[in-house]
Amino acid sequence: MDKKSKKASRLIKSKVAIIGDGSWATALYNTISELDVELYWWVRLPEIKDFIKKYHGNPDFLRFLELHPTISHISTNVNEVVSKCDILLFAIPSPYLKDSLSSLSPRDLKNKIVVSAVKGIIPRTHQLISDFFSHTYKVPEDHFVFLTGPSHAEEVANKRMTYLTLASSSPAAIEAVKPLLDNHFIAIRESADVKGLEYASILKNIYAIAVGICHSLGYGDNFLAVLTSNAVREMKQFFTLASPANRDADSSGYLGDLMVTAFSQFSRNRTFGTMIGKGYSVKSALLELNMIPEGYFASQSFSNLLKHYPQARLPIVTTVYHILYAKADPQKEFRKLEAYLI
Amino acid sequence: MDKKSKKASRLIKSKVAIIGDGSWATALYNTISELDVELYWWVRLPEIKDFIKKYHGNPDFLRFLELHPTISHISTNVNEVVSKCDILLFAIPSPYLKDSLSSLSPRDLKNKIVVSAVKGIIPRTHQLISDFFSHTYKVPEDHFVFLTGPSHAEEVANKRMTYLTLASSSPAAIEAVKPLLDNHFIAIRESADVKGLEYASILKNIYAIAVGICHSLGYGDNFLAVLTSNAVREMKQFFTLASPANRDADSSGYLGDLMVTAFSQFSRNRTFGTMIGKGYSVKSALLELNMIPEGYFASQSFSNLLKHYPQARLPIVTTVYHILYAKADPQKEFRKLEAYLI
Repeated sequence: MDKKSKKASRLIKSKVAIIGDGSWATALYNTISELDVELYWWVRLPEIKDFIKKYHGNPDFLRFLELHPTISHISTNVNEVVSKCDILLFAIPSPYLKDSLSSLSPRDLKNKIVVSAVKGIIPRTHQLISDFFSHTYKVPEDHFVFLTGPSHAEEVANKRMTYLTLASSSPAAIEAVKPLLDNHFIAIRESADVKGLEYASILKNIYAIAVGICHSLGYGDNFLAVLTSNAVREMKQFFTLASPANRDADSSGYLGDLMVTAFSQFSRNRTFGTMIGKGYSVKSALLELNMIPEGYFASQSFSNLLKHYPQARLPIVTTVYHILYAKADPQKEFRKLEAYLI
Repeated sequence: MDKKSKKASRLIKSKVAIIGDGSWATALYNTISELDVELYWWVRLPEIKDFIKKYHGNPDFLRFLELHPTISHISTNVNEVVSKCDILLFAIPSPYLKDSLSSLSPRDLKNKIVVSAVKGIIPRTHQLISDFFSHTYKVPEDHFVFLTGPSHAEEVANKRMTYLTLASSSPAAIEAVKPLLDNHFIAIRESADVKGLEYASILKNIYAIAVGICHSLGYGDNFLAVLTSNAVREMKQFFTLASPANRDADSSGYLGDLMVTAFSQFSRNRTFGTMIGKGYSVKSALLELNMIPEGYFASQSFSNLLKHYPQARLPIVTTVYHILYAKADPQKEFRKLEAYLI
């Protein structure tokens, strides 16, 4: 699409893996494949691998993209891909992460830089992705990078200006990853606040469900603005209790990401909320969507987490949790919620 | 439309005036006219007055609304309307406020409660509306109330849930105004931060122009989220310098109002920005719009104001000002702006 950026490509010494075949993984693959880099790609199914090899496009996501499969190695064997690379970018929805990586052992990830592009929480164990990699795979803090920011994959694929935040306790790890993404349509911002950004990226999905519910209950933009500004207040209140680091939570990695999700009509979390607000049961909404919106698990995880912070008041999160897990009536719950918003 | 709220109306002893005939004035008139209150309405032109009397609707704004003209007194004589009332709600766009009130003297406003529903700044003198009423009409602080919040007039007219903030240094003044608006679809929030909320309501119009420009330059939602979260940061930075009161700038009167404006496609400020981004000259955009977007004056006023705060960095405001008043190229200015956003 853009020949110039190809010409201006830099040589990257690290070998890089994209793990995942959804829209975000595909957009990341497409971006990085423009560089002079040895790039590997793990996809789930042989059909997907074959399709990409044959047609130079992902059969399921961002179909308009013409990918560069010649310079890369596509495989359905995650161990093989991981073993060959130094930097691993994981872009798998959190509900599927654990199973997708089950054949890997801590030894396989030793000395690798693990980049999580996963915005979500591990279901049941309620772990942050950083904690999951740390506990299950012994990935040390200084080898872990969280990639976030307001980033619809479609826009990144279309090379529209996007700000991504790389967060790590290790500036060296950020420096290793940065050249992969820093280009003429991506601006990189850096942060040391891994957990704060992870929490923000989880909470926003819960708030997107709330936005969907309120929309189908007939609330308008005036109320949506109140709901969203209160979501920001909740997020910050949680930060001060759970992760009181020094951060600017109004920067794009926190507030920007929350806004792009809350105000996007294409978020699957919002769509899920819209169905719930219209009276679908959770089960039939999940069935009809044919994918699991991350905010569904996140609201349970957060509700669990909040037990450790009895002072925390996150009425929007609690409202979503009650509606999704305690079959509470959306209309009545939102009526109650109104009193808590300022 | 909603007969029930009519039945449940409360007796209001104060005599109330709505000053203005735009959409916000009309929505406020419609809301308050459902109460058992002596209500007066100043409109600019005899034709408008006659139309409303005859057809029970505003000829120019919110035409779908069936107004209750029988219980009110409509006049084109502002002195007459003001003289009869105790509480005056001003809902006139800031560029027209001064001229519309030129026949009034300080004595006419003595002992009245002045409610400003004006989100803007007085052109040329660069005054906040509270300062304008204080300087020109000697309205004391404790008789002034600022009415704000994320409130598209159309949604208020349609009785969709809306949060309005009443701000005054005088709790008694707020108490006097509150019963006029506190009903089943309006939630009132209270504040003592008059100037902070006024600044927020001015800045958001400048940011809406920025959103319009960036939209027509081809930026997408990813960038829009970055622009808007940085607008919030700018607003707060200005607060800490110019008006360091204790406030929660993430509540609906500040952040919510900014969001409803930035993300609304129907804001005239955004439309103006869109035209500028498409290459219209300022003059032809103003001509074609046939109304003056308040952010146009606000960006000049703010640019002026910022000279008093040399430490302040408000790159978005500055960018809009350069484009509108120094004929700077929108594309180039936004390219420069990108570096300042985080």
